[in-house]
Formats: sequence, C-alpha cells, structure tokens
Amino acid sequence: MKIIIAPDSFKESLTALEVAEAIEAGLKAVLPHAECVKIPMADGGEGTVQSLIDATDGTLHTAEVTAPLGNRVAAQYGISGDGKTAIIEMAAASGLHLVPPSERNPLITTSYGTGELILAALNHGVEKILLGIGGSATNDGGAGMLQALGADLLDEHGAAIGYGGGSLAQLARADFSRLDARLQQVALEVACDVNNPLCGEKGAAAVFAPQKGATPAMVPTLDANLAHFAQIIQRDASKDIASGAGTGAAGGMGGGVLLLPRAELKSGVQIVIDYVQLADQIRDADWVITGEGRMDAQSVHGKTPVGVARVAKQFGKPVIALVGCLRADYAAVYDCGIDAVFPIVRQLDSLEAILQQGGANLQSAAENVARLYLALK
Amino acid sequence: MKIIIAPDSFKESLTALEVAEAIEAGLKAVLPHAECVKIPMADGGEGTVQSLIDATDGTLHTAEVTAPLGNRVAAQYGISGDGKTAIIEMAAASGLHLVPPSERNPLITTSYGTGELILAALNHGVEKILLGIGGSATNDGGAGMLQALGADLLDEHGAAIGYGGGSLAQLARADFSRLDARLQQVALEVACDVNNPLCGEKGAAAVFAPQKGATPAMVPTLDANLAHFAQIIQRDASKDIASGAGTGAAGGMGGGVLLLPRAELKSGVQIVIDYVQLADQIRDADWVITGEGRMDAQSVHGKTPVGVARVAKQFGKPVIALVGCLRADYAAVYDCGIDAVFPIVRQLDSLEAILQQGGANLQSAAENVARLYLALK
Repeated sequence: MKIIIAPDSFKESLTALEVAEAIEAGLKAVLPHAECVKIPMADGGEGTVQSLIDATDGTLHTAEVTAPLGNRVAAQYGISGDGKTAIIEMAAASGLHLVPPSERNPLITTSYGTGELILAALNHGVEKILLGIGGSATNDGGAGMLQALGADLLDEHGAAIGYGGGSLAQLARADFSRLDARLQQVALEVACDVNNPLCGEKGAAAVFAPQKGATPAMVPTLDANLAHFAQIIQRDASKDIASGAGTGAAGGMGGGVLLLPRAELKSGVQIVIDYVQLADQIRDADWVITGEGRMDAQSVHGKTPVGVARVAKQFGKPVIALVGCLRADYAAVYDCGIDAVFPIVRQLDSLEAILQQGGANLQSAAENVARLYLALK
Repeated sequence: MKIIIAPDSFKESLTALEVAEAIEAGLKAVLPHAECVKIPMADGGEGTVQSLIDATDGTLHTAEVTAPLGNRVAAQYGISGDGKTAIIEMAAASGLHLVPPSERNPLITTSYGTGELILAALNHGVEKILLGIGGSATNDGGAGMLQALGADLLDEHGAAIGYGGGSLAQLARADFSRLDARLQQVALEVACDVNNPLCGEKGAAAVFAPQKGATPAMVPTLDANLAHFAQIIQRDASKDIASGAGTGAAGGMGGGVLLLPRAELKSGVQIVIDYVQLADQIRDADWVITGEGRMDAQSVHGKTPVGVARVAKQFGKPVIALVGCLRADYAAVYDCGIDAVFPIVRQLDSLEAILQQGGANLQSAAENVARLYLALK
C-alpha cells in the first residue's frame, strides 16, 4: 500500500513537512507496512519557500535587501537541493508585515527588494525561479523590482524615478536594454491566483491598495499612475502589462514581471504541483492525504488541498483532507475531488494551546482514518 | 446496508435521540439507501430517562416529592411505551443540583424523594423499574428511600428516625414488614458502576461525601453511622448491605436498595443494553456508530460507547465513535472494541457556541465517515 501525504503547512503551528510527518506517524501506528511518501506542499503563498526546501532537501539563504520603506532588511529565500531552482516569496522583501501599520502607504512603498532577491537567486546560477507574490505592501506595478534588475525607469530629466506607486507619475521613458542579461536564461514562474487586471475598478489600486494602507483619496492616484506606467511601457517596450488576467496581482507586480523575458503567471499550487512532480507520485498510489490549517469555501480557489485533489482525481485516487479548522461553508471542496474531510481538534482550548497541539491532533486523526479503513474495508 | 446508531447524549448539547438523528442525517446524505436504526442509549446516569423514553416511544411524568433538604420538588421519571417499565433517576428527586452549594450537608440530606418516585412508578402498575443512582446529594444509606416505601426505621422511643446521614445514629430497630407489598412483583434494576463498599476507607462517606458537602470532621461520623445502620439491618433483617461491591454507591443507596425484595445492582449501560435488546439489533448490522460528549481514559469504565462496542464485538462488527471532546488519554478505548474515533468540533469557538453547533458538527462528521467508507472501500 502506497499513501501520498501532500499537505500544506498549518499556519502558526506546523510546516508542511511537520504536518506530513505527524500524519505519517498516525498512519504507521496502524499500517506499519504502508509506504508513506511525504511531499510538503504549498500554494505560492506563505510557507512556499520552507515547503519546497523541505521537499527537495534544499537550503535556506539570506540576502540583505531594500524593505518597502527603503530601509534594509534580511530576507530569506530558498535554493532547491539540486541547486537549479530558487524559491522566492515577495513578502520576504516587500511584505506588508515589514511596514508598521501606521506607516503603510502604497504611494511610497517599493518592490525594489524583490528585485534584489531575484538578483541574489541569479547569483546562484539557477535555471528557474519560482516567485510567490502574495502579501505585498506595494502598489508600484513592480517598478522597483524592475529597477533593481537593471531597468531604466526615467523621469523627464532622465533621472531614475523614486520609489512607490506615487513616483510612477514621473515616469517619462522606460528602457529595458540594461536588464540583467542572465534573465534570458532563467525561467520565472510567478504564482498568481487572482484574475484582476492592472487598472480600473477591479484593478490593483481599487481592490488591494486599501488593505495596504491607501486612503480613499489615494486610490484614484495610484490607479491613474499604474495606467500611466502601462502606457509608457506599451509605447517604449511594446508590451501590454495592463489587460491580462492577474496583471493587477500584488500591486501590479503581476503586470511588471511580464517585462522579464521568461516570466509566466501561473496558479501557485500548480507551480508547486509541477515542480514536485506530484502526478508521477500519485499515479501508482492507493490514497492521497492532504490538509491545510483552515478549509472553507475559499479553499476551492487555488488552495493546496483542492490542487492536490485535482491531480489525484486524474488517476481516480481517494483524497482525504485533515484540517485544523473547518468552516461551515466548506462543502464545495467535495466537488473538487476531496472525498472526506476531518477536523483534527480534539478538545477546546486556547488558540495558542490548539496551535501547539497540532502535531498530536494530526497524528491522532490520521491514525483514526487508517483505523476506519481497516474496520470498514 | 444496515447501520446501528447507538450514542449516548451529548451533555448540555443534545439528547441521545438528537445525536442519533444528526448522525443519521449525515450518513443518509451519502448513503441514502442505508437502513439506519437509531437507538438512543445511556449508562444509567444523567439522560437515561430521556433516552429510554425516546427509545421506547414512552412518556415523561412528574411527581411532587421530597427534595434532599425536605422541601418539595417536582421530579420527572419515565414510563416506557408499553407501560411495563419505569425509568427513574435518583438525581431527579435527591440530586446534588437540588441543594445550593452553601447548604450541602450529607448529615441532613435525605433520599426520601427517591422512594416517593418508586411509589409513583408502582402506581403505574409497572413490572420493572430501572433506577439510576448517580449524582445524589445524600449519604443516608438509602434510609429515606426505604422509609418512603413503608420501612419502619425507629429510634429507641419507637419513633421514626429523621432525615439524613446524621439521624442514622438514632436507629435502634428496623422493621420491613410494612414495606409496600407491590415491590414483591416488580424487578428493580439499579444502575451501579462503582465497586465501593458501604463503609471504611473506600466507603461512601470517605470517598463520595466530601463532594456532597461533608467537612473532614463529618466523614468519620457519616461512616460510623452507615456502619451502625448496617449492623441494625443485619440484626433485624438478616441482610448484609455493607460488604458487597457497590453498596457504597450513591451515599449507600447501593446498599439500602438491597432491602427491596427484587433489587439487583448492575452496570448502568448493561441495564440499557439489555433493555433495548441491543444485541438483537446489532446481530445483522454492517456497522455500529456510537458517541458521547467526552471520551477519555474513564470511558472504558461503564460508559456507553464502550458498552455498545463490547456488544458489537460479540458479532465482529466495526464500531465508530463520534465525540464532542477527545482527551489525550483516550486510547484505551481501542482495546474495548472501538475501532475509530473522530472528534466533531470543526472550529474553535466559545463553549456555548460549540454546544449549539453539536448537531451540525455531528452531521458533518457522520457524512465524512460515510464518504471515507465510499472512497476507501
């Protein structure tokens, strides 16, 4: 019997590898001869670096980069075990959590540090970069990131424009001829699970900037500046970074990355699924067990368990999810290939205590799934 | 497919019938053609009257009886649908919850009301009485109960002794010739799940009286009085009510009831199992689902799920338990025939909210058990 254990992390409680280990321990207590294959998963969001390092026996690295407000910050990124792939989370360099709530202002926050992280990855000689862009503090269309990588974004005096979504108004000319040449050789897969366009009422500024500290008065300015940015780019680089689905992701980073020669926007969980070759593992398995910290109606939109289930269902395999919290509206996951879901909390306690009990609760739940299997098979 | 649904109640949340209905709804969502047999269970403790009324389509009745402190209280009891059996919980007439904490004093609390409830049952012309004796406020050896049923417990002046464990010291003579004659015709099954003797260091006073309000100083007095009571009984009625296992249950009620002609102490859940003829139902079933509000190491000692599981295992049937709370020390239930246990809480909330979500959580858990069965069978 072969069981694939492919969970996401349980936020604030366990990494995806720790989740997989707890599930394996529970299964092995009842099915000692089962072959358990642990594949730490992620969806391109928080935890993706850790999961893919764990999945590939890779290494964690740190680079000092520019934080959203211009100060320096030590940001982590991962290199896969074979050294060929870098895994980067934009949030590590340009995340909202790096800006104190009172100072959040997308007119001035920059994605420059994310570009520096990409440079650091290039210095490792990788062939591929996986870039998660969730949780950013920025609305600069990825302009800072492009500048860090060598793009010339210039004002009417020929000087580089400043940081932030406000400075895009000064952009008079864009020149990508000095972009880091190594980018030609490196595939850049960008995890993007929203369909928002760069501008307009469903654009980055209108939809996402308010949660990054934009006042109602800032939103039209930020939106107009992104439109101006796209216009200049269209004129100077003959690229449309405004109308495609997802160009509005991460304050327009979804659009900005399209200026990098081999960038592609993809579903985050699909990037991970492809990278870990999940289908090849599931093909000859008997069951698949997945999980996430919280499952709800949103879980059908690009979350790990549903992504895993879709792969499993290509091969007709049963999929069981173990979850920390199961919201009342979760039932849609059944239509996405998840056969059964079990919440793991065994007794009420403080959230802090519950988070600490995550491993024991997962192990118990997995053991009982295996027990039920033996009893009812 | 035939599934037996035989849970206990979930205290403060759902009756056993409500638990069974929620589980049935969850199973039927996935297995619409399954035959679900709902058998509300109990263990002789709180909820036994409700469960057996629900199990037999019986009726609930009220009698005004003597509360532990001598005041009057309306106490409920059940009559089975066929009218042949009464179900009584001692706590309804003589329960600790009927005495405000500051007034709890086993020197004065009486079991008289329980005797009045037995009289009320006799007035229905029943053939059998099932008596649960948990949760009492008393330490009177069942003396009050015996007096209510016609026993003469007299002091040295030939007057009836007063209420409470303190008054037993005045007992000079016991005469059971005027005991209600109908008791000769009625089988009395007394639910008793402790082995304590009437007196001594493991006796009623030493072990149970402190939680009923006895001060350390009272305990030796209460213990000596029970010993004196037993001595007089031995002399005047030639019965040993002191040394048998369980005679110390419920403040010595376990001993006192032995003076009723057809009384028998039995495990509470076994009384219910026999009464609802659980074995006959399980014999041709495919699975058994049970449950209780909280499962822990104590669950192996006479609690409903383990009792149900023992019957199921006589026929080699799988047993699945759904529980509100699963304590870390629960694993001993696996050795008692429970194959798999699933906690039902789906998300952290206040205890009050969790208790209100009991039905929905049970339904979801049962549905996922059925889903897992379909996926893995």
